Amino acid sequence: MAIDLHIPIAVSARHAHLSQATIERLFGEGYVLTRRSALSQTGQYSAREMVTLIGPHGRLDHVRLMGPPRERDQIEISRSDEFVLGLDAPLRISGDLKGTPGIFVQGPRGRIALATGVITAQRHIHMSPQDACRLGVRDGDMVSAKVGRAGRSLRFDEIAVRVAPDFTLELHLDTDEANAAGVTSGDLAQLVEPASGNENGSTAQPAVA
Amino acid sequence: MAIDLHIPIAVSARHAHLSQATIERLFGEGYVLTRRSALSQTGQYSAREMVTLIGPHGRLDHVRLMGPPRERDQIEISRSDEFVLGLDAPLRISGDLKGTPGIFVQGPRGRIALATGVITAQRHIHMSPQDACRLGVRDGDMVSAKVGRAGRSLRFDEIAVRVAPDFTLELHLDTDEANAAGVTSGDLAQLVEPASGNENGSTAQPAVA
Repeated sequence: MAIDLHIPIAVSARHAHLSQATIERLFGEGYVLTRRSALSQTGQYSAREMVTLIGPHGRLDHVRLMGPPRERDQIEISRSDEFVLGLDAPLRISGDLKGTPGIFVQGPRGRIALATGVITAQRHIHMSPQDACRLGVRDGDMVSAKVGRAGRSLRFDEIAVRVAPDFTLELHLDTDEANAAGVTSGDLAQLVEPASGNENGSTAQPAVA
Repeated sequence: MAIDLHIPIAVSARHAHLSQATIERLFGEGYVLTRRSALSQTGQYSAREMVTLIGPHGRLDHVRLMGPPRERDQIEISRSDEFVLGLDAPLRISGDLKGTPGIFVQGPRGRIALATGVITAQRHIHMSPQDACRLGVRDGDMVSAKVGRAGRSLRFDEIAVRVAPDFTLELHLDTDEANAAGVTSGDLAQLVEPASGNENGSTAQPAVA
């Protein structure tokens, strides 16, 4: 029986997850983020509020905040953004912020210097334990998926699998990755079955589930 | 005997190839481009001169000109750039400009509205007839290559093969593609042997040479 290997794509533009303390420094005391639209991952939302990122070489305006507030400030940018800002952010899974660079963040009521927290997101697939079982993968596995519109099709390797009960099946790419494949949110990727992943001799194949 | 399938990568940032007539409109009558550095393709060079691109939604400053001047104006930008400028440029091989959008180009001595000529470059490999023979591909073939640094490895499909006697072996990627793979100019790609290209069932595999 054939497994459905299709995975919806969600493209993440540059954005910021901030702590309540940081939000208040930028927007004023007691400020509460305004929900703009729900994200597909349970409870997460895109906020109305935006900030400006200021790096050593340049700035990026209109950077969207995500809610709800987190314990720690985390800024996710693309490598293209890094060239604009003038900094070198490591490739990380969300939450893994040790040794990451800092940045200035400007809001309407203040500016703050974050000592750390800027990353480029490691591409990853969110999924529930049920999806993980069905697809034969485990949390922490690295898998491959075919992605792309006419003229720009490609296969991403080293996609991290992230499994949690409240996760919705979704491949998260940043704008560089989406643009390289010519895709947008809502397009479909196709998981390369782990068992067949080594046919082309790639060195970046999934762990056996 | 194993074939060496490694191909040097060259990353193309946004740039413009302009006609002598356009150059004179932007820089002054009789203006001659100044050579800055040689490109690996014979006779091509990066010029000292830069222009500003102006689209319906935004502008990009410091866009490098390439020389020598061409018969027709051609502007090559990334999809990330398209979002900044506010236009939708098709994926094309260099020189295939029919039906492409126009743009404003600003130089130090004038501004010109180009009616056409803006493209996103189809990723491609330049090679000599000798390299094509050695690698078992032909001009116009579509091939695949593995690319990428730790954490961002991927396989690009639909890479156009371009063969000419004066071409130097080189995979040309734009900045979105290079950033998605975490590579820079001088890194190496590895051609996927055409004979093994269909193992993963991709629909975007090379024609048989």
